[in-house]
Amino acid sequence: MSAGRIEQKLAELGIALPEAPAPVAAYVSVTRTGNLVITSGQLPWVGDKLVYEGKLGGDLNDEQGYEAARVAAINAIAQLKLAVNDLDKVKQIVRIEGYVHCADGFRGHPQVLNGASELIAQVFGDAGKHTRTALGINEMPLNSPVQLVVWAEVED
Amino acid sequence: MSAGRIEQKLAELGIALPEAPAPVAAYVSVTRTGNLVITSGQLPWVGDKLVYEGKLGGDLNDEQGYEAARVAAINAIAQLKLAVNDLDKVKQIVRIEGYVHCADGFRGHPQVLNGASELIAQVFGDAGKHTRTALGINEMPLNSPVQLVVWAEVED
Amino acid sequence: MSAGRIEQKLAELGIALPEAPAPVAAYVSVTRTGNLVITSGQLPWVGDKLVYEGKLGGDLNDEQGYEAARVAAINAIAQLKLAVNDLDKVKQIVRIEGYVHCADGFRGHPQVLNGASELIAQVFGDAGKHTRTALGINEMPLNSPVQLVVWAEVED
Repeated sequence: MSAGRIEQKLAELGIALPEAPAPVAAYVSVTRTGNLVITSGQLPWVGDKLVYEGKLGGDLNDEQGYEAARVAAINAIAQLKLAVNDLDKVKQIVRIEGYVHCADGFRGHPQVLNGASELIAQVFGDAGKHTRTALGINEMPLNSPVQLVVWAEVED
Repeated sequence: MSAGRIEQKLAELGIALPEAPAPVAAYVSVTRTGNLVITSGQLPWVGDKLVYEGKLGGDLNDEQGYEAARVAAINAIAQLKLAVNDLDKVKQIVRIEGYVHCADGFRGHPQVLNGASELIAQVFGDAGKHTRTALGINEMPLNSPVQLVVWAEVED
Repeated sequence: MSAGRIEQKLAELGIALPEAPAPVAAYVSVTRTGNLVITSGQLPWVGDKLVYEGKLGGDLNDEQGYEAARVAAINAIAQLKLAVNDLDKVKQIVRIEGYVHCADGFRGHPQVLNGASELIAQVFGDAGKHTRTALGINEMPLNSPVQLVVWAEVED
Protein backbone atom coordinates (compact mmCIF):
# COMPACT_ATOMS: atom_id res chain seq x y z
CA MET A 1 0.00 0.00 0.00
CA SER A 2 1.33 3.44 -0.87
CA ALA A 3 1.67 6.05 1.85
CA GLY A 4 -1.28 8.42 2.25
CA ARG A 5 -1.27 12.11 1.48
CA ILE A 6 -0.52 13.19 5.06
CA GLU A 7 2.23 10.59 5.50
CA GLN A 8 3.82 11.89 2.29
CA LYS A 9 3.65 15.42 3.65
CA LEU A 10 5.35 14.31 6.85
CA ALA A 11 8.07 12.65 4.77
CA GLU A 12 8.56 15.84 2.73
CA LEU A 13 9.00 17.76 5.97
CA GLY A 14 11.57 15.22 7.12
CA ILE A 15 9.41 14.09 10.02
CA ALA A 16 9.51 10.44 11.05
CA LEU A 17 6.51 9.73 13.24
CA PRO A 18 7.57 8.05 16.47
CA GLU A 19 5.66 5.32 18.24
CA ALA A 20 2.75 7.03 19.96
CA PRO A 21 4.08 7.72 23.47
CA ALA A 22 2.51 5.58 26.19
CA PRO A 23 0.77 7.31 29.07
CA VAL A 24 2.79 7.81 32.27
CA ALA A 25 0.00 6.60 34.57
CA ALA A 26 -3.44 4.94 34.76
CA TYR A 27 -5.08 6.19 31.59
CA VAL A 28 -4.96 5.83 27.79
CA SER A 29 -3.12 8.04 25.32
CA VAL A 30 -5.95 8.71 22.87
CA THR A 31 -9.67 8.10 22.60
CA ARG A 32 -12.50 8.46 20.11
CA THR A 33 -16.09 9.47 20.72
CA GLY A 34 -18.30 9.73 17.67
CA ASN A 35 -16.21 11.54 15.07
CA LEU A 36 -13.99 13.27 17.62
CA VAL A 37 -10.54 12.01 18.53
CA ILE A 38 -8.93 13.47 21.66
CA THR A 39 -5.38 12.94 22.85
CA SER A 40 -4.19 12.87 26.42
CA GLY A 41 -1.82 15.65 27.37
CA GLN A 42 1.21 15.23 25.11
CA LEU A 43 4.73 15.98 26.28
CA PRO A 44 7.79 16.58 24.07
CA TRP A 45 9.16 13.04 24.26
CA VAL A 46 11.99 12.03 21.96
CA GLY A 47 12.33 8.35 22.72
CA ASP A 48 12.28 8.09 26.50
CA LYS A 49 13.59 11.62 27.16
CA LEU A 50 11.92 14.99 27.08
CA VAL A 51 13.60 17.19 24.47
CA TYR A 52 13.92 19.89 27.15
CA GLU A 53 13.00 20.24 30.82
CA GLY A 54 12.19 23.34 32.82
CA LYS A 55 10.33 26.61 32.67
CA LEU A 56 10.01 29.11 29.89
CA GLY A 57 11.16 32.52 31.01
CA GLY A 58 13.55 30.77 33.38
CA ASP A 59 15.49 27.69 32.31
CA LEU A 60 14.52 27.86 28.65
CA ASN A 61 14.28 30.47 25.90
CA ASP A 62 11.43 30.93 23.42
CA GLU A 63 13.21 29.01 20.64
CA GLN A 64 13.58 26.00 22.90
CA GLY A 65 9.92 26.29 23.85
CA TYR A 66 8.93 26.48 20.18
CA GLU A 67 10.90 23.31 19.48
CA ALA A 68 9.33 21.55 22.48
CA ALA A 69 5.84 22.48 21.27
CA ARG A 70 6.71 21.19 17.79
CA VAL A 71 7.92 17.86 19.20
CA ALA A 72 4.80 17.49 21.35
CA ALA A 73 2.67 18.15 18.25
CA ILE A 74 4.52 15.41 16.35
CA ASN A 75 3.72 13.06 19.20
CA ALA A 76 0.08 14.16 19.05
CA ILE A 77 -0.01 13.31 15.34
CA ALA A 78 1.35 9.87 16.23
CA GLN A 79 -1.57 9.51 18.68
CA LEU A 80 -4.07 10.48 15.97
CA LYS A 81 -2.55 7.82 13.73
CA LEU A 82 -2.87 5.28 16.54
CA ALA A 83 -6.58 6.16 16.79
CA VAL A 84 -7.55 6.14 13.11
CA ASN A 85 -4.66 4.26 11.46
CA ASP A 86 -4.79 6.37 8.28
CA LEU A 87 -4.06 10.08 8.87
CA ASP A 88 -5.91 10.97 5.67
CA LYS A 89 -9.08 10.31 7.68
CA VAL A 90 -8.46 13.48 9.70
CA LYS A 91 -11.02 15.97 8.41
CA GLN A 92 -10.13 18.83 10.71
CA ILE A 93 -7.82 19.61 13.60
CA VAL A 94 -10.45 21.19 15.83
CA ARG A 95 -8.58 22.43 18.85
CA ILE A 96 -5.16 22.61 20.46
CA GLU A 97 -4.95 23.13 24.20
CA GLY A 98 -1.53 24.61 24.85
CA TYR A 99 -0.05 24.67 28.33
CA VAL A 100 3.30 26.37 28.91
CA HIS A 101 5.39 25.70 32.01
CA CYS A 102 6.56 29.18 32.90
CA ALA A 103 8.32 31.40 35.38
CA ASP A 104 7.07 34.71 36.78
CA GLY A 105 6.52 37.38 34.18
CA PHE A 106 6.63 35.13 31.11
CA ARG A 107 4.56 36.45 28.19
CA GLY A 108 5.73 34.43 25.18
CA HIS A 109 3.02 31.71 25.25
CA PRO A 110 1.80 32.47 21.70
CA GLN A 111 5.30 32.33 20.19
CA VAL A 112 6.07 29.05 21.96
CA LEU A 113 2.80 27.39 20.96
CA ASN A 114 3.25 28.45 17.34
CA GLY A 115 5.76 25.59 17.29
CA ALA A 116 2.73 23.29 17.41
CA SER A 117 0.31 25.39 15.37
CA GLU A 118 2.69 26.02 12.49
CA LEU A 119 3.61 22.34 12.25
CA ILE A 120 -0.07 21.36 12.19
CA ALA A 121 -0.64 23.91 9.41
CA GLN A 122 2.28 22.56 7.39
CA VAL A 123 1.13 18.97 7.71
CA PHE A 124 -2.64 19.30 7.38
CA GLY A 125 -3.07 22.49 5.31
CA ASP A 126 -6.63 23.82 5.51
CA ALA A 127 -7.66 20.82 7.60
CA GLY A 128 -5.16 22.04 10.19
CA LYS A 129 -6.98 25.28 11.01
CA HIS A 130 -7.64 24.90 14.73
CA THR A 131 -8.78 26.89 17.71
CA ARG A 132 -6.33 27.29 20.55
CA THR A 133 -5.94 28.04 24.20
CA ALA A 134 -2.61 29.34 25.52
CA LEU A 135 -2.19 29.06 29.28
CA GLY A 136 0.68 29.36 31.72
CA ILE A 137 1.21 26.56 34.23
CA ASN A 138 3.20 27.04 37.42
CA GLU A 139 4.34 23.43 37.79
CA MET A 140 4.17 20.73 35.11
CA PRO A 141 4.43 16.95 35.45
CA LEU A 142 7.98 15.67 34.89
CA ASN A 143 9.20 19.27 34.62
CA SER A 144 8.02 19.30 31.00
CA PRO A 145 8.14 22.74 29.32
CA VAL A 146 4.85 22.21 27.48
CA GLN A 147 1.79 19.99 27.40
CA LEU A 148 -0.55 19.81 24.39
CA VAL A 149 -3.95 18.28 23.78
CA VAL A 150 -5.08 17.87 20.19
CA TRP A 151 -8.72 17.38 19.14
CA ALA A 152 -9.50 16.14 15.64
CA GLU A 153 -12.66 15.49 13.69
CA VAL A 154 -12.27 12.30 11.69
CA GLU A 155 -14.20 10.53 8.93
CA ASP A 156 -16.72 7.82 9.74
CA MET B 1 -34.27 41.32 7.71
CA SER B 2 -35.30 41.95 11.30
CA ALA B 3 -32.87 41.25 14.09
CA GLY B 4 -33.19 37.85 15.75
CA ARG B 5 -34.31 37.16 19.29
CA ILE B 6 -30.79 37.02 20.74
CA GLU B 7 -29.67 40.14 18.88
CA GLN B 8 -32.71 41.96 20.30
CA LYS B 9 -31.76 40.80 23.78
CA LEU B 10 -28.24 42.12 23.30
CA ALA B 11 -29.68 45.45 22.18
CA GLU B 12 -31.93 45.58 25.26
CA LEU B 13 -28.88 45.02 27.43
CA GLY B 14 -27.10 47.86 25.63
CA ILE B 15 -24.47 45.52 24.22
CA ALA B 16 -23.07 46.23 20.77
CA LEU B 17 -21.31 43.12 19.51
CA PRO B 18 -17.79 43.94 18.34
CA GLU B 19 -16.07 42.39 15.37
CA ALA B 20 -15.02 38.93 16.47
CA PRO B 21 -11.43 39.47 17.68
CA ALA B 22 -8.78 37.96 15.41
CA PRO B 23 -6.37 35.41 16.87
CA VAL B 24 -2.97 36.70 18.03
CA ALA B 25 -1.03 33.88 16.36
CA ALA B 26 -1.19 30.91 13.96
CA TYR B 27 -4.70 29.58 14.61
CA VAL B 28 -8.37 30.44 14.03
CA SER B 29 -10.74 32.14 16.44
CA VAL B 30 -13.65 29.71 16.29
CA THR B 31 -14.42 26.30 14.81
CA ARG B 32 -17.34 23.94 14.36
CA THR B 33 -17.40 20.15 14.54
CA GLY B 34 -20.77 18.50 14.10
CA ASN B 35 -23.19 20.57 16.17
CA LEU B 36 -20.49 21.89 18.52
CA VAL B 37 -18.95 25.33 18.16
CA ILE B 38 -15.78 26.01 20.15
CA THR B 39 -14.01 29.33 20.51
CA SER B 40 -10.32 29.88 20.96
CA GLY B 41 -9.30 31.38 24.27
CA GLN B 42 -11.02 34.78 24.41
CA LEU B 43 -9.38 37.81 26.01
CA PRO B 44 -11.16 41.00 27.16
CA TRP B 45 -10.42 43.05 24.05
CA VAL B 46 -12.14 46.39 23.57
CA GLY B 47 -10.97 47.39 20.13
CA ASP B 48 -7.22 46.76 20.11
CA LYS B 49 -6.74 47.13 23.89
CA LEU B 50 -7.39 44.79 26.77
CA VAL B 51 -9.94 46.38 29.12
CA TYR B 52 -7.52 45.64 31.99
CA GLU B 53 -4.11 44.07 32.35
CA GLY B 54 -2.58 42.26 35.29
CA LYS B 55 -3.33 39.78 38.04
CA LEU B 56 -6.37 39.42 40.22
CA GLY B 57 -5.46 39.58 43.86
CA GLY B 58 -2.57 41.85 42.89
CA ASP B 59 -3.01 44.58 40.27
CA LEU B 60 -6.78 44.24 39.96
CA ASN B 61 -9.78 43.89 42.26
CA ASP B 62 -12.70 41.49 41.89
CA GLU B 63 -14.97 44.08 40.27
CA GLN B 64 -12.38 44.72 37.56
CA GLY B 65 -12.04 40.98 37.08
CA TYR B 66 -15.82 40.61 36.79
CA GLU B 67 -15.87 43.32 34.12
CA ALA B 68 -13.00 41.69 32.25
CA ALA B 69 -14.81 38.33 32.26
CA ARG B 70 -17.97 40.03 30.98
CA VAL B 71 -16.06 41.69 28.12
CA ALA B 72 -14.38 38.39 27.19
CA ALA B 73 -17.83 36.75 27.13
CA ILE B 74 -19.14 39.44 24.77
CA ASN B 75 -16.21 38.69 22.48
CA ALA B 76 -17.03 34.98 22.71
CA ILE B 77 -20.61 35.72 21.62
CA ALA B 78 -19.17 37.62 18.65
CA GLN B 79 -17.18 34.46 17.79
CA LEU B 80 -20.32 32.33 17.98
CA LYS B 81 -22.01 34.73 15.61
CA LEU B 82 -19.04 34.49 13.25
CA ALA B 83 -19.46 30.70 13.27
CA VAL B 84 -23.24 30.41 12.79
CA ASN B 85 -24.22 33.87 11.52
CA ASP B 86 -27.58 33.85 13.34
CA LEU B 87 -27.27 33.64 17.14
CA ASP B 88 -30.78 32.22 17.37
CA LYS B 89 -29.25 28.98 16.14
CA VAL B 90 -27.48 28.54 19.47
CA LYS B 91 -29.38 25.76 21.24
CA GLN B 92 -27.27 25.59 24.37
CA ILE B 93 -24.16 27.14 25.84
CA VAL B 94 -22.54 23.90 26.92
CA ARG B 95 -19.40 24.90 28.74
CA ILE B 96 -17.31 27.86 29.81
CA GLU B 97 -13.67 27.32 30.61
CA GLY B 98 -12.65 30.18 32.88
CA TYR B 99 -9.00 30.99 33.50
CA VAL B 100 -8.08 33.73 35.94
CA HIS B 101 -4.64 35.35 35.98
CA CYS B 102 -3.95 35.57 39.69
CA ALA B 103 -1.46 36.35 42.41
CA ASP B 104 -0.61 34.20 45.43
CA GLY B 105 -3.53 33.52 47.72
CA PHE B 106 -6.29 34.65 45.37
CA ARG B 107 -9.61 32.88 45.98
CA GLY B 108 -12.19 34.94 44.09
CA HIS B 109 -12.27 32.93 40.84
CA PRO B 110 -16.03 32.19 41.07
CA GLN B 111 -16.93 35.85 41.62
CA VAL B 112 -14.76 36.99 38.73
CA LEU B 113 -16.08 34.39 36.31
CA ASN B 114 -19.67 35.22 37.21
CA GLY B 115 -19.06 38.26 35.02
CA ALA B 116 -19.16 35.84 32.10
CA SER B 117 -21.76 33.40 33.43
CA GLU B 118 -24.29 36.05 34.40
CA LEU B 119 -24.01 37.77 31.03
CA ILE B 120 -24.53 34.46 29.22
CA ALA B 121 -27.62 33.83 31.39
CA GLN B 122 -29.02 37.29 30.62
CA VAL B 123 -28.51 36.90 26.89
CA PHE B 124 -29.45 33.27 26.31
CA GLY B 125 -31.86 32.51 29.17
CA ASP B 126 -32.36 28.76 29.69
CA ALA B 127 -30.16 28.08 26.67
CA GLY B 128 -27.37 29.77 28.61
CA LYS B 129 -27.15 27.16 31.38
CA HIS B 130 -23.58 25.97 31.09
CA THR B 131 -21.01 23.92 32.95
CA ARG B 132 -17.88 25.71 34.08
CA THR B 133 -14.30 25.30 35.14
CA ALA B 134 -12.62 27.99 37.26
CA LEU B 135 -8.85 27.81 37.33
CA GLY B 136 -6.04 30.07 38.43
CA ILE B 137 -3.20 30.75 36.00
CA ASN B 138 0.19 32.01 37.14
CA GLU B 139 1.11 33.83 33.90
CA MET B 140 -1.29 34.71 31.08
CA PRO B 141 -0.53 35.72 27.48
CA LEU B 142 -0.41 39.51 27.02
CA ASN B 143 -0.84 39.94 30.78
CA SER B 144 -4.59 39.45 30.30
CA PRO B 145 -6.57 39.12 33.57
CA VAL B 146 -8.84 36.38 32.18
CA GLN B 147 -9.16 33.93 29.31
CA LEU B 148 -12.45 32.23 28.41
CA VAL B 149 -13.41 29.40 26.09
CA VAL B 150 -17.09 29.01 25.20
CA TRP B 151 -18.61 25.80 23.82
CA ALA B 152 -22.05 25.93 22.21
CA GLU B 153 -24.40 23.36 20.73
CA VAL B 154 -25.97 24.77 17.59
CA GLU B 155 -28.80 23.77 15.27
CA ASP B 156 -28.14 21.77 12.11
CA MET C 1 -36.19 -2.06 40.40
CA SER C 2 -32.86 -3.76 41.04
CA ALA C 3 -29.68 -1.72 41.09
CA GLY C 4 -27.77 -1.58 37.81
CA ARG C 5 -24.38 -3.11 37.14
CA ILE C 6 -22.42 0.04 37.90
CA GLU C 7 -24.39 0.77 41.07
CA GLN C 8 -23.64 -2.79 42.22
CA LYS C 9 -19.96 -2.22 41.53
CA LEU C 10 -20.03 0.97 43.59
CA ALA C 11 -21.69 -0.96 46.43
CA GLU C 12 -19.01 -3.69 46.23
CA LEU C 13 -16.35 -0.99 46.54
CA GLY C 14 -18.15 0.40 49.58
CA ILE C 15 -18.89 3.68 47.84
CA ALA C 16 -22.15 5.46 48.61
CA LEU C 17 -22.79 8.05 45.93
CA PRO C 18 -23.48 11.46 47.46
CA GLU C 19 -25.99 13.95 46.17
CA ALA C 20 -24.40 15.54 43.12
CA PRO C 21 -22.72 18.67 44.55
CA ALA C 22 -24.38 21.93 43.56
CA PRO C 23 -22.32 24.55 41.72
CA VAL C 24 -20.79 27.32 43.84
CA ALA C 25 -21.84 30.11 41.46
CA ALA C 26 -23.92 31.00 38.38
CA TYR C 27 -23.71 27.81 36.33
CA VAL C 28 -24.92 24.19 36.27
CA SER C 29 -23.09 21.13 37.52
CA VAL C 30 -23.44 18.88 34.48
CA THR C 31 -24.65 19.13 30.91
CA ARG C 32 -25.31 16.91 27.91
CA THR C 33 -24.75 17.66 24.24
CA GLY C 34 -25.53 14.86 21.83
CA ASN C 35 -24.08 11.73 23.40
CA LEU C 36 -21.50 13.61 25.45
CA VAL C 37 -21.96 14.41 29.12
CA ILE C 38 -19.58 16.98 30.64
CA THR C 39 -19.29 17.89 34.31
CA SER C 40 -18.36 21.25 35.72
CA GLY C 41 -15.08 21.32 37.63
CA GLN C 42 -15.56 18.91 40.54
CA LEU C 43 -14.03 19.53 43.94
CA PRO C 44 -13.50 16.95 46.71
CA TRP C 45 -16.63 17.76 48.67
CA VAL C 46 -17.72 15.46 51.49
CA GLY C 47 -21.04 16.97 52.50
CA ASP C 48 -20.41 20.70 52.75
CA LYS C 49 -16.66 20.43 53.46
CA LEU C 50 -13.69 19.80 51.23
CA VAL C 51 -11.92 16.62 52.34
CA TYR C 52 -8.67 18.61 52.36
CA GLU C 53 -7.62 22.17 51.64
CA GLY C 54 -4.31 23.52 50.44
CA LYS C 55 -1.48 22.86 48.03
CA LEU C 56 0.23 19.64 47.10
CA GLY C 57 3.95 19.85 47.72
CA GLY C 58 3.19 22.31 50.53
CA ASP C 59 0.27 21.73 52.90
CA LEU C 60 -0.58 18.24 51.68
CA ASN C 61 1.25 15.05 50.80
CA ASP C 62 0.70 12.82 47.78
CA GLU C 63 -1.52 10.36 49.67
CA GLN C 64 -3.84 13.17 50.69
CA GLY C 65 -3.90 14.41 47.13
CA TYR C 66 -4.71 10.90 45.87
CA GLU C 67 -7.62 10.72 48.31
CA ALA C 68 -8.86 14.17 47.26
CA ALA C 69 -8.78 13.14 43.59
CA ARG C 70 -10.69 9.96 44.45
CA VAL C 71 -13.39 11.93 46.31
CA ALA C 72 -13.71 14.41 43.44
CA ALA C 73 -14.12 11.47 41.05
CA ILE C 74 -16.92 10.03 43.20
CA ASN C 75 -18.65 13.40 42.99
CA ALA C 76 -18.17 13.38 39.22
CA ILE C 77 -19.86 9.96 39.04
CA ALA C 78 -22.76 11.45 41.02
CA GLN C 79 -22.97 14.20 38.36
CA LEU C 80 -23.04 11.61 35.58
CA LYS C 81 -25.89 9.87 37.38
CA LEU C 82 -27.73 13.18 37.67
CA ALA C 83 -27.39 13.60 33.90
CA VAL C 84 -28.40 10.12 32.70
CA ASN C 85 -30.15 8.63 35.75
CA ASP C 86 -28.87 5.10 35.08
CA LEU C 87 -25.07 4.79 35.20
CA ASP C 88 -25.23 1.69 33.03
CA LYS C 89 -25.89 4.08 30.15
CA VAL C 90 -22.29 5.30 30.35
CA LYS C 91 -20.57 3.77 27.31
CA GLN C 92 -17.16 5.30 27.84
CA ILE C 93 -15.39 7.70 30.15
CA VAL C 94 -13.76 9.78 27.45
CA ARG C 95 -11.57 12.25 29.27
CA ILE C 96 -10.51 13.44 32.69
CA GLU C 97 -9.11 16.92 33.06
CA GLY C 98 -7.02 16.89 36.23
CA TYR C 99 -5.93 20.10 37.89
CA VAL C 100 -3.65 19.97 40.92
CA HIS C 101 -3.25 22.93 43.28
CA CYS C 102 0.47 22.90 43.90
CA ALA C 103 3.45 24.65 45.41
CA ASP C 104 6.75 25.41 43.71
CA GLY C 105 8.65 22.37 42.54
CA PHE C 106 5.78 19.86 42.82
CA ARG C 107 6.07 16.97 40.37
CA GLY C 108 3.59 14.37 41.67
CA HIS C 109 0.59 15.28 39.48
CA PRO C 110 0.32 11.80 37.92
CA GLN C 111 0.36 10.03 41.29
CA VAL C 112 -2.27 12.37 42.72
CA LEU C 113 -4.59 12.08 39.73
CA ASN C 114 -4.34 8.30 39.76
CA GLY C 115 -6.71 8.61 42.71
CA ALA C 116 -9.36 9.53 40.16
CA SER C 117 -8.18 7.35 37.27
CA GLU C 118 -7.88 4.17 39.32
CA LEU C 119 -11.34 4.65 40.84
CA ILE C 120 -12.85 5.17 37.39
CA ALA C 121 -11.12 1.98 36.21
CA GLN C 122 -12.45 0.00 39.18
CA VAL C 123 -16.01 1.23 38.70
CA PHE C 124 -16.34 1.21 34.92
CA GLY C 125 -13.83 -1.46 33.80
CA ASP C 126 -13.02 -1.19 30.09
CA ALA C 127 -15.59 1.59 29.73
CA GLY C 128 -13.43 3.57 32.15
CA LYS C 129 -10.40 3.86 29.84
CA HIS C 130 -10.02 7.62 29.49
CA THR C 131 -7.58 10.20 28.22
CA ARG C 132 -6.18 12.63 30.75
CA THR C 133 -4.55 15.98 31.24
CA ALA C 134 -2.49 16.64 34.38
CA LEU C 135 -1.82 20.30 35.09
CA GLY C 136 -0.55 22.30 38.02
CA ILE C 137 -2.56 25.30 39.17
CA ASN C 138 -1.05 28.10 41.23
CA GLU C 139 -4.27 29.14 43.02
CA MET C 140 -7.49 27.13 43.14
CA PRO C 141 -11.02 28.26 44.06
CA LEU C 142 -11.84 27.62 47.73
CA ASN C 143 -8.25 26.46 48.30
CA SER C 144 -9.24 23.06 46.92
CA PRO C 145 -6.32 20.67 46.35
CA VAL C 146 -7.75 19.32 43.09
CA GLN C 147 -10.36 20.04 40.45
CA LEU C 148 -11.58 17.41 37.97
CA VAL C 149 -13.72 17.49 34.85
CA VAL C 150 -15.12 14.20 33.58
CA TRP C 151 -16.38 13.68 30.01
CA ALA C 152 -18.51 10.61 29.25
CA GLU C 153 -20.07 9.18 26.11
CA VAL C 154 -23.54 7.87 26.92
CA GLU C 155 -26.16 5.79 25.15
CA ASP C 156 -28.95 7.43 23.16
